[in-house]
Amino acid sequence: FSGAGTIRATLFPGDGIGPEIAKAVKQVFSAVQVPIEWEEHYVGTVVDPKTGSFITWNSMESVRQCGIGLKGPMATPIGKGHKSLNLTLRKELGLYANVRPCLSIPGYKTRYDDVDLITIRENTEGEYSGLEHQVVRGVVESLKIITRQASIRVAEYAFHYAKLHGRKRVSAIHKANIMKKTDGLFLQCCREVAEKYPDLVYEEVIIDNCCMMLVKNPALFDVLVMPNLYGDIISDLCAGLIGGLGLTPSGNIGDNGLALMEAVHGTAPDIAGKNMANPTALLLSSVMMLKHLKMNEPAEKIHKSILKTIADGKWRTFDLGGSTSCSDYTKAVIDNL
Amino acid sequence: FSGAGTIRATLFPGDGIGPEIAKAVKQVFSAVQVPIEWEEHYVGTVVDPKTGSFITWNSMESVRQCGIGLKGPMATPIGKGHKSLNLTLRKELGLYANVRPCLSIPGYKTRYDDVDLITIRENTEGEYSGLEHQVVRGVVESLKIITRQASIRVAEYAFHYAKLHGRKRVSAIHKANIMKKTDGLFLQCCREVAEKYPDLVYEEVIIDNCCMMLVKNPALFDVLVMPNLYGDIISDLCAGLIGGLGLTPSGNIGDNGLALMEAVHGTAPDIAGKNMANPTALLLSSVMMLKHLKMNEPAEKIHKSILKTIADGKWRTFDLGGSTSCSDYTKAVIDNL
Ligand SMILES: CC(C)[C@H](C(=O)O)[C@@H](O)C(=O)O
Ligand SMILES: CC(C)[C@H](C(=O)O)[C@@H](O)C(=O)O
Repeated sequence: FSGAGTIRATLFPGDGIGPEIAKAVKQVFSAVQVPIEWEEHYVGTVVDPKTGSFITWNSMESVRQCGIGLKGPMATPIGKGHKSLNLTLRKELGLYANVRPCLSIPGYKTRYDDVDLITIRENTEGEYSGLEHQVVRGVVESLKIITRQASIRVAEYAFHYAKLHGRKRVSAIHKANIMKKTDGLFLQCCREVAEKYPDLVYEEVIIDNCCMMLVKNPALFDVLVMPNLYGDIISDLCAGLIGGLGLTPSGNIGDNGLALMEAVHGTAPDIAGKNMANPTALLLSSVMMLKHLKMNEPAEKIHKSILKTIADGKWRTFDLGGSTSCSDYTKAVIDNL
Repeated sequence: FSGAGTIRATLFPGDGIGPEIAKAVKQVFSAVQVPIEWEEHYVGTVVDPKTGSFITWNSMESVRQCGIGLKGPMATPIGKGHKSLNLTLRKELGLYANVRPCLSIPGYKTRYDDVDLITIRENTEGEYSGLEHQVVRGVVESLKIITRQASIRVAEYAFHYAKLHGRKRVSAIHKANIMKKTDGLFLQCCREVAEKYPDLVYEEVIIDNCCMMLVKNPALFDVLVMPNLYGDIISDLCAGLIGGLGLTPSGNIGDNGLALMEAVHGTAPDIAGKNMANPTALLLSSVMMLKHLKMNEPAEKIHKSILKTIADGKWRTFDLGGSTSCSDYTKAVIDNL
């Protein structure tokens, strides 16, 4: 691929089905001779004293150095005080925008055709502050924090993304009729940024109404930007419209191009190691990664092949009601390249 | 209707299309000779010093005295410091459970058949605490409050409802993997109550996953119980599955049988006074009201007639793409009784 030297990228295969679907990505990348050299890091079973989490300092440093990474699902060890590894990565690496494109997959039929939605979620604060306490016995409170800095940052990302990708409309999703100050500040920031993008339609939609409209007519929306928890909810809803988290990629974006793409489905421990996993979400995430690196040629090639393989209809993994193994599906993707 | 004396019930027609759809209910009730005498209260344009809101002390007192009421949509006057009238009613009257049944309407086709979901929403606290403040410039926080008292109360209502209505499963919806303390307390309360109902299946579902599953396969759920904001979101999502808020009733339940049923759609100021409104949500809410009063005979009669009228296909109001007026639709419902 003309001119591009080899790029180092971090790979976190993750737990459960993670290693299998990561293998699929590695095989497809080899087949296309993508000039990526993986720095593979496994999540350990021991808390690293330097990070206070199961993610070692070395693996964090790898993402920082490479500036780009791909991650499979990670199981947060059960027990008191273990913070979600997914969240730790987002927070520690300052990955402030979570981008989840949901596009209908031709040949995989759901109740919805032609879904084409991009949810952009604030990824560092809001209801995910981790600040909670018991006021008195039987009365607990959680703090939702909204800052101007984080809201402007994600709004800027959303509008920039919309413009760059030829999108027409940005909808800010909120509940500012109730949370007038927090969601109000979020909206205020979106409005300020919107003014710099007069060519994009900007609208504000209350989250409950947004969910109702999404299930009635997803074509009403285009790019959606919102605080953390609403993004968590709406991105899963959107994924459901096209078939679920097994088919949707996701990217976490930070400063200076830092990005960690991830499959956001679970570790599926029940089928782990049985060659039954669906690698599509991680493969699509790897396509997002390549696009982020401006390696558009291999990105398109892999993307087309994934779509062709699914459209074929012959290669349905177990989660989609078929019986194709992870390796056979991967082989089909490689054959269709 | 055997034995039942006349019952006094509060009626808040509300704003916008409110009076038109309230008229439809009154006409249908007259036709069936439902032994209800309405105490009609309009929401004023002046803040009542006794209540601090646009809802007068008299009208609040009417609901308290009657113990039962029906309300149309209310527009909260725009301006600083006006609290939503809907919320004021819920809070001041201690209406702690919000019940929204979503049933597919035969003859009104959506992408989903046979939706049969009951969402039961905690109606007084959570993200609706109204407690928000600016910490420093550009940093604001909202408090989500969960109490043991309110959680047990709504959980008990949900399980009681499920048992009474022959339901099989209660799903508690939460995000306790993130809000471990607040949603954790809510779940803890649901678990305690669940133990008293061994015949009902109890499960806990994370809200993002719940939304994904609802759009993929709503038949997975039955009765859903959840904190305030999740209930707001999920009840609208569910309404979307069967066609929208124009077709879904809702009830707010308090202590000692106190109940205020309401149409939760908006005031639709653009079509107000034009005889174009769809009275279905308020009519279905009035059916809920009658059932709550154990007036099952007129309730069933009206319910069947509404369903028949919609199934006919000839009587489609404007919101559903037809051109039947509010009064013609109401006449059809009366003819079908
Ligand atoms: C696993 C969980 C902590 C996470 C979240 O809530 O953000 C997940 O739902 C996601 O959307 O990536
Ligand atoms: C109007 C608004 C304050 C209200 C809410 O958020 O509860 C509405 O969305 C509802 O569901 O009844």
